[in-house]
This record gives sequence, C-alpha cells and structure tokens, in this order.
Amino acid sequence: MGNIIKQLAVLGSTGSIGQQTLEVVRVFPHRFHIVGLAAGKNIDLLARQISEFKPSFVWYQEGETQGRLPDGAYELLPLEDIACHPQVDTVVIATAGKSGLLPTLAAVRAGKKVAIANKESLVMAGEIITNEANLNAAQVLPIDSEHSAIWQCLNGETQEAAQLILTASGGPFHHYSSARLKGVTVEQALRHPSWRMGKKVTIDSATLMNKGLEVIEAHWLFNIPFDNINVIIHPQSIIHSMVEFIDGSVKAQLSYPDMRLPIQYALSYPERLPNPQLPKLDWSNIGNLTFEQPDFDTFPLLKLAIEAGKKGGTYPAVLCAADEAAVELFLSQRIKFIDIANLVAQALEQHQVIICPTLDEIMAADVWAGEKVLHLVTGDNP
Amino acid sequence: MGNIIKQLAVLGSTGSIGQQTLEVVRVFPHRFHIVGLAAGKNIDLLARQISEFKPSFVWYQEGETQGRLPDGAYELLPLEDIACHPQVDTVVIATAGKSGLLPTLAAVRAGKKVAIANKESLVMAGEIITNEANLNAAQVLPIDSEHSAIWQCLNGETQEAAQLILTASGGPFHHYSSARLKGVTVEQALRHPSWRMGKKVTIDSATLMNKGLEVIEAHWLFNIPFDNINVIIHPQSIIHSMVEFIDGSVKAQLSYPDMRLPIQYALSYPERLPNPQLPKLDWSNIGNLTFEQPDFDTFPLLKLAIEAGKKGGTYPAVLCAADEAAVELFLSQRIKFIDIANLVAQALEQHQVIICPTLDEIMAADVWAGEKVLHLVTGDNP
Repeated sequence: MGNIIKQLAVLGSTGSIGQQTLEVVRVFPHRFHIVGLAAGKNIDLLARQISEFKPSFVWYQEGETQGRLPDGAYELLPLEDIACHPQVDTVVIATAGKSGLLPTLAAVRAGKKVAIANKESLVMAGEIITNEANLNAAQVLPIDSEHSAIWQCLNGETQEAAQLILTASGGPFHHYSSARLKGVTVEQALRHPSWRMGKKVTIDSATLMNKGLEVIEAHWLFNIPFDNINVIIHPQSIIHSMVEFIDGSVKAQLSYPDMRLPIQYALSYPERLPNPQLPKLDWSNIGNLTFEQPDFDTFPLLKLAIEAGKKGGTYPAVLCAADEAAVELFLSQRIKFIDIANLVAQALEQHQVIICPTLDEIMAADVWAGEKVLHLVTGDNP
Repeated sequence: MGNIIKQLAVLGSTGSIGQQTLEVVRVFPHRFHIVGLAAGKNIDLLARQISEFKPSFVWYQEGETQGRLPDGAYELLPLEDIACHPQVDTVVIATAGKSGLLPTLAAVRAGKKVAIANKESLVMAGEIITNEANLNAAQVLPIDSEHSAIWQCLNGETQEAAQLILTASGGPFHHYSSARLKGVTVEQALRHPSWRMGKKVTIDSATLMNKGLEVIEAHWLFNIPFDNINVIIHPQSIIHSMVEFIDGSVKAQLSYPDMRLPIQYALSYPERLPNPQLPKLDWSNIGNLTFEQPDFDTFPLLKLAIEAGKKGGTYPAVLCAADEAAVELFLSQRIKFIDIANLVAQALEQHQVIICPTLDEIMAADVWAGEKVLHLVTGDNP
C-alpha cells in the first residue's frame, strides 16, 4: 500500500479547494501524481499549475487563452472525459456549483474514487450519484471537513450511526438578531471567523445554508435518515462533527480548521500521512469548546434546506440553484443579505416538484430556479 | 455474530465495576451469560448474585460464609481456575488492587478475552501480561473509561497513534493550592465530582495518582511510548480521552460519565448494543467543555507515577503498593491527604529497583513497599 502512487485529476484546480489539494500533493510527490487539471476562469493560475505539475490532461472553461497556457505534452479533454479517464484513480471534485455534477457522475460511473468537495452534486442528484456509485463500485469520499469528520468517526465501526451531529461555526453573524442582519454588508458576510474558503461557500456559511446543504450531503454520503442528522453551533470550529452510536457513545474528530487535513485524508485513505505543514492541536491554548443550538428563525435557510432535503425530488436542485442565483445577486450588491433566504423560500414555494427526477429534470429545475430568482428580483419574465 | 452468547466470569462481582457489569448483563440476557462469580468480603451481595445469575463457578475470599451462600449447582473454584476455565470466553477483571494480577495472567495464558478494569495488574506487570497475551492470542480489552475511549478512537485505524491524550476530571480538589490540600478530609476526598467508583479509585482520583496509573496502563495496552502520552484536565468528564494521529487529526470519545458504557463496549466489542439505561448526551445542555494543563506541583503523584512507569522494572509495583498502603492509612484517618504522595515518594526513593523482574520479584517489591509505608508511618520495622 505504501508505495502506490495515486493518479489524481483535480477538477476545479484554481479554486480554494483545488489549490489546497495541490498544496497537499506538493508535500507528497511520491504518493500523488497529477494526471489531470481543470479550471474555470483563472487561466493564468492554471498555466502555472500546468508548468509545475505537468498533467497529461487539461480542461478549461471557454474563453480567451491564446498564448496564456504553456506548451507541453498535455491533451485538452472535456471535463467528463478527464473524470473517467483510465489513467485516473482518484478524481477530486473541487468545482463550484452545479458544474461538479456531470463530472461526478462520469467518475462514479467509471468506478473511480471520487473525493468530493462540491456540495451541489450530492444535494441536487444524491440519489442518482449514490445509486451509480453502488452499481459501479465507485467510492465517494468526502472532503468537506464535517463529512470527513463523520467518515473518520465511522471508520472501523461495524454498525450504522444512531445520529450524526454536524457542527457549524455559526458564521460571522452568529448571535445577530433578524433586525441586525438586515443591514449587513457583502464585506462583513465574506469575513468568516474560522475558515478560508471561496466566496460562495463563505456567504452560504453566513446564512447557514451551507450547513443545510451539508445535512443533505450527509444523508446521501452515509445513508442516514434526515431525522437522525442534527446541527449544533460550535463557534471554535475545533470539533468538525460527531457521530453517536446505538450504545450512546459519541465519537468526534478534532483539528484546527484547515481544509488540507480532510483533503489529505480523502487522498491517503485508509492511510494517514505525516504532513509537517498541518498544524497540531495545542491543548495548552484550547481552553474552551462551546456548543449552542442553531437559531432556525434568524437563519431560515438552514430549515428550508433540511425541509427541501426531506421532501426530495427536484426540491434540493431548486434550493441550490435559487441560492446560487441569490448569492450572486447579493455579492453584486443587488439584493440585501436577508433577501437570499426570502428568494430561496419563494422559489421553493412556487416550484412544481417532480419526484424521482431524471438528470434532465434536475437540470431543468435548476435552470427554472435560477431564472425564477432573477425574475423575482428584476420583474423580467424568465 | 448476533446470536452468540458470551460466557462471562466476573471477578470482583460485588465491587463497583462488578455490580455495574452485572447491570449490563441484566439488560442483555440473550447476549451474556454469567459462568463465574468471584468476590471478596461482601458475602451477602455475592449470595444474592449467585441466586440471580446461577453461575457454574464461584470464588470468595476466606471468611465466615457458613449458611450465607445459597445452595445450588455451583462449584467452588480458586480465582485463577475460574479465570482460565474452558467454559469461560471473557473474564472481567474487576477486583481491587493487586488481587487482579494472578487471575489476569491465568486468563491471558488461557487465551481468553480479558476485560480489564483493574489497573494494578497492568501497572505492576504490564510487560509480562502483554507478552503472555501476545503469545497466547489473548485479547486484553480495557474497561477504564479513558482506555475504552482510546480503544474506540483507534478502531479501524491502520497506523499507530501519534499521541494519546488522557483526560482527567481533576477530582474534588481541582484548583486547590498545596496549602489548602493539607486540611482536606476523607469525606471531602471521597466526594468525586463526576464518577461513581470504589473508595480506593476515588482517593486516587483526588491525588491524580489514578491518572498516573492510567498513563502506565495506556503505555502497555496500546504499545505507545510514555513521551507520546499526555494528560489534560477536563473537569466536565464528557470527553473520556483522545487520540492524535500522524496527520494531526484527533479523535475523541464522548459520553456522560457512566462506567456501564465502557463495560458494555468491552463485552459487546466489536458490536455495539442499544442499552436504554445508558444516558445519551444532550447537546442542548452541554454548553461548555473546558481544558487545562494538570498541576504537577500540587499533585505530585501524577508526575511520580509517570516517572515510575518510564523507569520500569519493579518501580511501578512499588508505586502501586505504596499508594495502596498510604490510601488505606488515609481512609482510616491515620495520615493526612498530602502524606499519601510523600509516602509514595519515599518508598520509590528507597527502593532498590530490579529491571526485567520476574513475577516473584514484582510480588516481593509489592510486599516490600507496603511494609515500607507502614514502617515510615509507625516507625515499626517491617
């Protein structure tokens, strides 16, 4: 086991998770080899990554790249073709939003190890992805710190969990009243107290939508009923999540908030690797770990998300797309922070759900919800 | 696996751990069957246990039992014979002090599963017991809450731990100064803030000796160097211990302080069983988990114990026996609380250590240390 070099494709290599994945790969050049890189708009960073890691396969989103990518022995391939390429063992899905869905499906259908940081894929199409993974003996390995924590706690257990307890930092607006939330700015919302992450996830953390998406993800990843998944606010972000077993024993996974740890664990599993760059908990400096119940009234997206997950069908796709559109409107300062939840709630209310949807029906619900949110804001017909 | 009834011998069945073991057995009559019971002085309770559980084999310490034990189809056998009897799968070592040592050895030599609550056996003769266990494919399963926590956290891991972090409640005198400790009474020392335990263990918790013994135990149970075992004060006794892995990830095991959980886990392992009598953590009531460094100056027995463990040889046996004698003197109000540590320190100082001792040499060191403490107090020659 110790000497096999894992062949990785990193989809979304220029984003926050993608860059941190490459940081881990840099530490263990004899364990991980980059076969494929794929990025969206940050062509200059992708160019530097190609020069450094010399992948065989590259994808980039349409746009002006003339002369900006280095010459070399790599082949330009579509995203899905990289995800299922025979030379790839493990696909890291670090793309943002729904763009992760099709490559995730391609990878699980090809029986790959799929290290998944992209929430939307599992939220929108959790049933399809997990069915395909089971059919094709693919392994879906979580990269989210919460799901990695649960996965680590479940390791070696012979029975299902009685309860999953997802921890949430509470975000930058923890303890804010609804009234105070009305005035928060984009800048404030992007100032996350404990995690360095992309903009979309940071806003979703501030609304607690992120935690709602994680509940849905956890449902699919660990095959646990929604009623057995709970959320607790833990502002220090040291305990990344917990599992309660049928005997009442609880296991927790702890570390400083640093995404490189769950990324590395997903890549090295079932082994662990000593990474001198990862900080060790210093118990002489950790005085206090605190826990509070989440405020579902002030942060309605958490409740909306869990409800959408429970109802299933095309609701989770609508949840994701409406949130994506609303967050974008907030980031461009066209709506207020509290409007994000209002818009998502309206989209969910007005949606005609399809139960057991096909992938096409999921994608159609996604398009519908994005347009619906725009329409609600601008008044234009979709 | 689900239908095999485990055949148990409970040695020390009338003590705190023994009684709680029988509480667990009562909940799962189709999973555990009591084959053997052994007790010291509490003949009346033993008699009731015999009537209820109908063991095949019984042992009791010398004393007046005429007419007090029920008639029945049980056989009186020596403690060690019960421990290695072919009808027994799992031996629960719940005896107090050094009386656990010989039955533990008999059980590991017979290749049994040995669920061990008795600290002294492993502290005094850890090397002999673990060697014999390895030779005879015996499993030594911890019952102490701290070691059970570590064992649960190690479950499924393919590599050794980087660090064990044993939590300690701090006992009833947490934050006391050395001066204030001088005046504490037996009654105060027996009032443990979080655990219900026997008297000896409760006093050892108040001096932190208990945690020192647990460090030595952990060294032997998990084959971890002393320098990689640390102690942290955690007054709420919710996190029962933690393991840090080579990637910096830490796992912890949590529950309300209730010995029935680690007892049950040792009996049911690798399964977990749903026990309605075991309390579930209520996160709406756990606001705060706190951590502090131990005060080695005010509680010198913690340091003395770890040093004795590191030095090895007959030192740990002297540590145990001197402490046992000193605690007895304190309980009978013949010495002060702070004298316990002074007496143990003097015994260790004056001991002529034997490296790689035989069992006889360990037992001789034990006798020497007990007599030495008495001599130091009374002035009588041993």
